[in-house]
Formats: sequence, C-alpha cells, structure tokens
Amino acid sequence: MGRYTIGIDFGTLSARAVLADTADGRELASAVYTYPHGVMDKALPDGAKLGQDWALQHPQDYLEAIWHTVPTVLRASGVDADDVIGVGTDFTACTMLPVKADGTPLCFLDAFKRNPHAWVKLWKHHAAQDKANRLNETAAQRQEPWLANYGGKISSEWAIPKLWQVLDEAPEVYAAMDRWIEASDWIVWQLSGAETRNSCAAGYKALYHKTAGYPSPAFFRALDPRLEQAATEKLGTVVIPPGARAGGMTEQMAAKTGLRTGTAVAAGHVDAHVCVPAVGIDGPGQMLAIMGTSTCHMLMGKQETQVPGMCGVVADGILPGFYGYEAGQSCVGDHFAWFLENALPKACADAAAEAGRDLHAYLREKAGAQAPGASGLLALDWWNGNRSVLVDADLSGMLLGLTLATRPEEIYRALIEATAYGTRMIVENFRTYGVPVEAFYASGGISQKDPLAMQIYADVLNMPIRIAGSRQGPALGSAIFAAVAAGRAAGGYDDVFAAARAMGSARGQTYIPHTGHAAVYDRLYAEYQRLHDYFGRGDNDVMKRLKALQAEQVGAFYVRE
Amino acid sequence: MGRYTIGIDFGTLSARAVLADTADGRELASAVYTYPHGVMDKALPDGAKLGQDWALQHPQDYLEAIWHTVPTVLRASGVDADDVIGVGTDFTACTMLPVKADGTPLCFLDAFKRNPHAWVKLWKHHAAQDKANRLNETAAQRQEPWLANYGGKISSEWAIPKLWQVLDEAPEVYAAMDRWIEASDWIVWQLSGAETRNSCAAGYKALYHKTAGYPSPAFFRALDPRLEQAATEKLGTVVIPPGARAGGMTEQMAAKTGLRTGTAVAAGHVDAHVCVPAVGIDGPGQMLAIMGTSTCHMLMGKQETQVPGMCGVVADGILPGFYGYEAGQSCVGDHFAWFLENALPKACADAAAEAGRDLHAYLREKAGAQAPGASGLLALDWWNGNRSVLVDADLSGMLLGLTLATRPEEIYRALIEATAYGTRMIVENFRTYGVPVEAFYASGGISQKDPLAMQIYADVLNMPIRIAGSRQGPALGSAIFAAVAAGRAAGGYDDVFAAARAMGSARGQTYIPHTGHAAVYDRLYAEYQRLHDYFGRGDNDVMKRLKALQAEQVGAFYVRE
Repeated sequence: MGRYTIGIDFGTLSARAVLADTADGRELASAVYTYPHGVMDKALPDGAKLGQDWALQHPQDYLEAIWHTVPTVLRASGVDADDVIGVGTDFTACTMLPVKADGTPLCFLDAFKRNPHAWVKLWKHHAAQDKANRLNETAAQRQEPWLANYGGKISSEWAIPKLWQVLDEAPEVYAAMDRWIEASDWIVWQLSGAETRNSCAAGYKALYHKTAGYPSPAFFRALDPRLEQAATEKLGTVVIPPGARAGGMTEQMAAKTGLRTGTAVAAGHVDAHVCVPAVGIDGPGQMLAIMGTSTCHMLMGKQETQVPGMCGVVADGILPGFYGYEAGQSCVGDHFAWFLENALPKACADAAAEAGRDLHAYLREKAGAQAPGASGLLALDWWNGNRSVLVDADLSGMLLGLTLATRPEEIYRALIEATAYGTRMIVENFRTYGVPVEAFYASGGISQKDPLAMQIYADVLNMPIRIAGSRQGPALGSAIFAAVAAGRAAGGYDDVFAAARAMGSARGQTYIPHTGHAAVYDRLYAEYQRLHDYFGRGDNDVMKRLKALQAEQVGAFYVRE
Repeated sequence: MGRYTIGIDFGTLSARAVLADTADGRELASAVYTYPHGVMDKALPDGAKLGQDWALQHPQDYLEAIWHTVPTVLRASGVDADDVIGVGTDFTACTMLPVKADGTPLCFLDAFKRNPHAWVKLWKHHAAQDKANRLNETAAQRQEPWLANYGGKISSEWAIPKLWQVLDEAPEVYAAMDRWIEASDWIVWQLSGAETRNSCAAGYKALYHKTAGYPSPAFFRALDPRLEQAATEKLGTVVIPPGARAGGMTEQMAAKTGLRTGTAVAAGHVDAHVCVPAVGIDGPGQMLAIMGTSTCHMLMGKQETQVPGMCGVVADGILPGFYGYEAGQSCVGDHFAWFLENALPKACADAAAEAGRDLHAYLREKAGAQAPGASGLLALDWWNGNRSVLVDADLSGMLLGLTLATRPEEIYRALIEATAYGTRMIVENFRTYGVPVEAFYASGGISQKDPLAMQIYADVLNMPIRIAGSRQGPALGSAIFAAVAAGRAAGGYDDVFAAARAMGSARGQTYIPHTGHAAVYDRLYAEYQRLHDYFGRGDNDVMKRLKALQAEQVGAFYVRE
C-alpha cells in the first residue's frame, strides 16, 4: 500500500504542486496555478499607482493556488486522501507581508487595502535600497558580529530594509501589524493553524542566528529608535528547521483541498534551498547550483565559517544539523540572452532561421565544435555585477582577445566559459576557507537544456556534474520534506537524509570532465583569476569610475558648439 | 595662359590620374584604370599556384594604366599637351620587382615568366615573415643603430625580407636580377628613362639613411653570406627627394600618352606620403592622418629623433628638407566593418533596412545622440594588433564596461572612441619625445564619410581637425610634385612649400572640439592609457598568452571521452 506526499512550490508568477510516492519520489501528478494578480509593479488592484522599483503580490492568490492545485493532483493521480501523509511548501524569499495576530493580512482589511504598504512585498521589490545602504553602513560602523555571516553586505530585498521602509513611509501600517512574516511561513500558518518561522528564511533573510538570535535592540535603535523592539514585537521567534512538522492540516483547509484534517504540514522553506534533497544530496561537501537567468549555489558544511564574499551561512539553513552556505552569480542565462538580443549578427540569426533551428541550439553546435582556448577570448562575467566572492554590483563585463577573425559563436562560448570560471571562483573560495566541495550537482533550466554549457562547467571545474532528474525540483523537494514531517510511523521518514536518498535523485545525465580540456581550462582560469583580482579587488577600479562617469553623463545635454 | 600637371596614383587594384591647374590645384579631369590582373594571390597568369600569404602583380598593368589614363584626362580636359609641364606619380609601397640593368622585369622574359619570384611582390605579400623575424633578431643582437629609426622593428612587407625570400627560394632569380627596385621607381624609369630611387620608399622601406646609407655589408652577411653585397649589387644608390626632376619623358612614352617628349617627370613617391602637400601642409608640426581601413599618420620635424614605437623617421621622407615621421594604426575602418559583420544584431540591421538607411549612417545617428561617457564602455583598439607606440601584432582587442543594458550603438561608438584614443596616444608619444604636433589634418574615406568619427577625434584630441578638400589626395599630391619637378620657369614652382600652399588645400569641413566633451574625454583617455600600458607594456601579457594558447588549440581534435 503506497504512501504519498504533496509538495507545493510558490514561484513568482505561479504555484506548482506535485504528488509524489514516498517510496521512490516518483511524481504521479502535477498541477500549475497562475496567480491572477501576478506581480503588481505598477498599481494596486484598485488602480492606486505604485512607485519606482515596487513589486507587490496578493496573498489571496496563494490561497487560491492551494485550493486549485491540491484537488487537481489528487484527482489526476487517483490517490486516496487517506494515503497522503503530508504537505510541504516552498516559497520565493524574501517575500514579506504584514499580518494581524490571527494571521489576517492587513491588505484584507478595508482600513488598509488602499495602502500599498499593507500588501505583500515580493522578493524583487527594490524600493528599500536606501534603507539597505544605511543598514550596511551602520552594521559596519558598529562592527556587528553577524555581518560577516553575510559576506559583509546585506541586500535591499531582505526583511529588515523592507520593514524599515514600511515604518518610514507608512507608520500606521507598521503600528497596525502584529507580525512581519515571510510568505513561506504565512502559508504554513494558513495550512496548519500554527505560526512558525523556518530557519532557512529567518537565517538567510532576517539576520536570525541559531544561538545569537536576531541583531540586538541596540543595533535596531541605531537604525531608528522606533525599531528598537522590532525583533520581539514584529518578527517571530519560534524558529523550526526544514522537515519539522509545523502542525496538522486545519479542518477548514482540509475541506477546501480534499485532504484529511491533521495531515502533517512541514515547516516552510525557500524555493532554492528546498531543491537540495530533491537531487539526492544528503550531507556536506555536495554543492547544488540552480542555473537559470542567474545561479544560486548551495552547500552544507559541518562548521560555521565566515567565508568572505558569500551570501550567507545559516545553521539548519538547508538541511537540519548542518550549516547551510549560499553563494550566487547574478547573471548567467541573462548573459546569453543579452548576447542574442544585442550582439548576434543578422547573418547568424538568418542562418539559424533558415535551418529551422533554435538560436541557442544553432550557436551551441558551432561553439561546441571548437576546442577550449581556440578562440583566444576571455571574458569577465560581470554584466550584472558580481554577487559572490567580490560582492560588488558596480563591476561590469569585459571581453578580451578580440581580433578581426573573431566570430559570434566564439563570443557566445566565451560568455559561457566566463560564467563557468565564476562558478569555479566560488568553489575555490569555499575550499580556501575550509569548506569542502567534493561533488557538484546542477538543476534549473540551463542544466536541462544546455549540454554545451554543462560540459564546459564540468571541464572548467574538473568535476563530474550530476544533473537533477526532476524538472520540478522545488516541488519535489517540498514533497520530500513533507515525508519527513509525516514521520516514519506514518509511512514517511524520520530524517531528511534517508528521505533524500530514497525520494531524491540525480537521474539526469552526468557530465564527465575531459582531461585534456580541463588542463587547457586550468590555464585559462589562471588568466581569469588574475583579471578578476585586477579589476575586482582595487588594483584598477576603472569599472567603477566608468559607471560613475556614466551616471554623470547619461542624458547630458548634447550640444554642438 | 594656364599650365597643368598630371598626377598618377598607383593603388592596389587600380590607378587614377588627375590633371590639375598649377595655379590653384583645381582638378580639370580624372580617369581610373583597373588592373586586368588585379592582385594575384592564388596563381600566376599561366595558372601556376602560389603559396599562402603571397600577393603578386603584373608590371604590364602599370604601363597600360599610364597609356589609358593620360590620354583620357588630356582629352576630357581639352588641355593642350604643350601646357602640361610635368607628370608625377605615387605608388603603393613596399611593392618590389626584380629587373635587368635596362629595366626589363624578369617576369617579361620567357626564361623566368613561370617563376613566381620573377613577378612584382605587392606590399601585402606576407610570405617573408620568417625572414623579417630573423632580420629583427639579428639587428637587435648586433644593436644596429638604424633599428631605432623604425621603432625597433621592421615589417615583413619591406624590401630586404622580400629580397631575402627570393634569394632563399629562387637563387636563380636572385642571380639574374640586376636590380631589386620599388615599383614607384620603376614606373619613373619607364616614364623618363632615368633610373632613380625616391628618398621616401628608400628610407621607409629599404632601411636607407641619408648620411649612413644602407645597413652595412657586415649586417647583410650576418643575415646570409650571399647577401653581403646586396646593397651595392641590387639596391640603387642614386636617391633623390620628392619633387626632384627624375628626367624628361622619353620619346616612346610621349608617343603612347600624347604628352611632349621631355616633359618633366618627378621623382617617385609613396601613396600615403604624397598626400601631405595636397592638404596644404607646408612644414613641420602639422600631422596628416589618412583614415581608411587602417590609418597612416605623417608628420614632419626639424630634427631626427628616434621616437620609440614609431614606424620610421626618414630625411626628405615626405617633403624635402625635413625629417618625415610615420606612424600607423593597423585597424580603424576595419573595426567598424568587423562590428557590422560580426556583432550587429538582426533587429538593428532590420530597422536600418526598413528605414532605407545605410547601416553606418543608422548607427551614427543613434551613437551620435549619446553624450561622451554615457555608455560606460571603454575599448582597446587592437583587433589587428598595435602598429605604433607598442608595435606589437600579438595584442588583441578588449571591450570593458558591458552591462545588460549595453546597446549595439554604444559598442559601435566605443570602437570609434578607441581608435581616437589610439590616435591621441600617437600624438602624445611624438610630443613626449620632442616632436611637436600643432595641427591635425585628415583625409581618406572615413574623413569624408563619417562626421561622427571626425567630431569624436576632434573632441578626444582637443584639436580642430581639417578635412582634405580633394577626394583624390594622392593623385593631386603627385600633380603638386610634378609642378615642382617642372620648376617655376616652366610655370610650376621651385619649391614644394609654395606649390602646396597654392595647389593643396583642406577645403573640406573643419571639426572644432567641444570643450565639455573634451573634458570628459580627458578622463576616459586617462583610463585608456592605463589599460593600454597594463596590457601593452608587460604588466599582464594575457593577450599574448591567449594567442599562444589559441595557436596550440586551433583545430585541436575535439573528443568527448
């Protein structure tokens, strides 16, 4: 008799549910629900205009997503609700909303629904940049001990800058909210009736430390006296690790979904980190790269080490019992898309069209026929700055080695190679600071669709790269954590490591490094490293000076005397 | 009663004659003759195959060009042959042929016409590179005093490497030739019956020095014992300055052209240098840039100074009585052509086509609407190496400051700016070594067709740029020297300075630097300089290492293990 769990992945534009067999992770059914309100970056539902860099969401969309997808996967799979032993969820982060003590979002209340600050601030709401800048300055001045856990800099996307923006611009909303909560925790509250905080989002986005807790009231006071008690007043302090059972499904939610009341609901999790067990990773030293427009790298270690230039280190941040390390590259698929739109010549585009080929596939074939180093090109992959190791948004891209014989497919390949060198830089940086990286896994669109890139990564890293077997990594990861929340007695697992080994997998292709290529890439990587340090570590800040000059000159009035 | 001269410019694919009024340089008629044999880089006329990097010409084409164009301009202008007081010519260089003591080309003789080495080696015959390399090594080892007059390095295009190749590969041709002569001197010999050598080609291409003569027999012996007496045996030693009267037109040539026997024939000259008086330059400190696919810079000085990184300094090399300095940029229009072919996106090309616009004009309009510095981009203009200042063919191009917002027209502008910085580097290098540059003139295709580039050059140099009035600069220059060869008594001039002032002109537009732009470009140029020195002067030889790796890897067998 089978036992099953449901994982629900809440993305930026839609949610996806998967119903999986707890025995082997086999996916029996899946369903997608596109949010009716999508991303609100221009106006509220009633038409009220939003400012520059705003990005909001509607919490009702999240509830509807559950009510639509769960009955759908039950029906499609033919599985009996009695055999569904748990539900797990993951969410974009940092995605925050203000709620009352009973969990009601402020935007559901007539008194607040016209106030933009009452709504969900999506991860990519970037209107709190000035708050983040001041927070970073203050933390650096005060030599806050936690700052180094985040590579020395925190992002405007995170919980405190966003909360501070609410306080500053809508003190009435700040006063009225009883909680400032991650959507990943709010949805678990809606499913189970239990208010919790997941250690992943709390640690990576809200500056929570497993032993030290949140930053001190003195720090908050230094930001703004009104924030002094923010941690205790607004942020939750019941923090539970991934796979923990947050509670049992409420009667009301059971009625809406067709599941049984009391079905185990797992702690919330973040959409990137939840993928780790889905590829079968069950311990430290195994890095997962989720490769899409940008890349997120996750890795576990046995110690807490402050690795310079990393995005964060968090106890229980990925799997319980280990320190979760995160790093990132801010521009990966985006490089290749930029190239196609801005630098692929007409002749190439026309030839691909004539051959009836996808442009990427056409270029991959031409670029793949070259030997490493044969183009003479080398690039720095900083078209969107550098997120990890240097942590500097003001760096920019560079392409070197151009000649009159340089062809478009060579530039395309050089951009792929540059992102691979960037990944190797992250891997070697972890190793340098004593966090081992012994195996490499990849998931995400590029890992599935771009064999040339994956072979180049294997050659540059000189490591085999195992590709995720499921294309629904986050939802499968959530289903795995659901099985842990349900426990072995109910037909699940008592620990996530066993669950990951049974249900997770890297059943996709494995890319094996080519020894000859790896030797050539060692030489090219040495050149990359040297230029990386020259332009990135202060020897020549030309990129920053050019950006500063650009800011002066953009739109400067152009007059011929 | 008017007096006229004819100038004939022998280019790579055709010759162009101009009949000009000696009073004011007005061009009454012009005619073009395209060489029937063009550039022979695959096979001889009888089908015999040529090697890689060969480029030959047929001397009969040069004679036919005279016989066709001179009668045509006479007829078209209606000028009486009695009123044509001189003929001047200029030629590509270094373009060499082996001839007998009476001037007969070896390729005209049945015994040799099947031997490729008996034909004209065109300037762009590049098959003597190994000879040039060995010559440079030997000269450096022996610390030959003349080496610094050529910026420390001579080119495979020049006379001695080409002669050495003949000796090595066809000793029977070497033995049979009585002279190894520039086409520029051979054509003057054919016109006048007088064998001379022009100081420009002898100085810039055959290592001839006005006081020291050719390199010593000991140097030639060090190259190859068989070359010991090459200078006296094969190279001519009667060297005359530009504007000197080589002789009077022969009876035979007069019959073929319709000109009078005894008409003054000017000393030969090189097609770039002959342009200098055509724009009205009459002394030192006035630089002329001939801007096309590549750029040639010419400048006169009062002293002989060994300026590092220049192409050459030659007494009487441009105008008599001054030291002629030459520098060059190996890739100017070629950059822009590369960009259009290899990096201009389809959307841009389609938009230009839809608007019925020339691609360059379309891009110029978009790029011209930007303020300097507004793109954040900076390039090093070394797509074809660096010819002057660094004199290093192994350098390559670089583009820096790229972001996801970078647009094609911004890259296009950055490439134009990079070539302007390269020109400023040459100007400042001359100034640093005490050779003043006080005025700047431009001729050639880009100067006539690209107002955006010319304004950027004016802004970057912070100097007005005067554009040549004539689009037939070389032929007009030759007509000016013809007037000097004829002399004042015949209706010409006794010195070339008076002739240049009367007949030459920069009647084209003058581009005036924009003060605000010049200030921004000073900052950008400082960044260019720093990167120029970092990559070009040995701090980081990454470009050379990448080229070396490329040479190893091109065509390397690509195996997936």
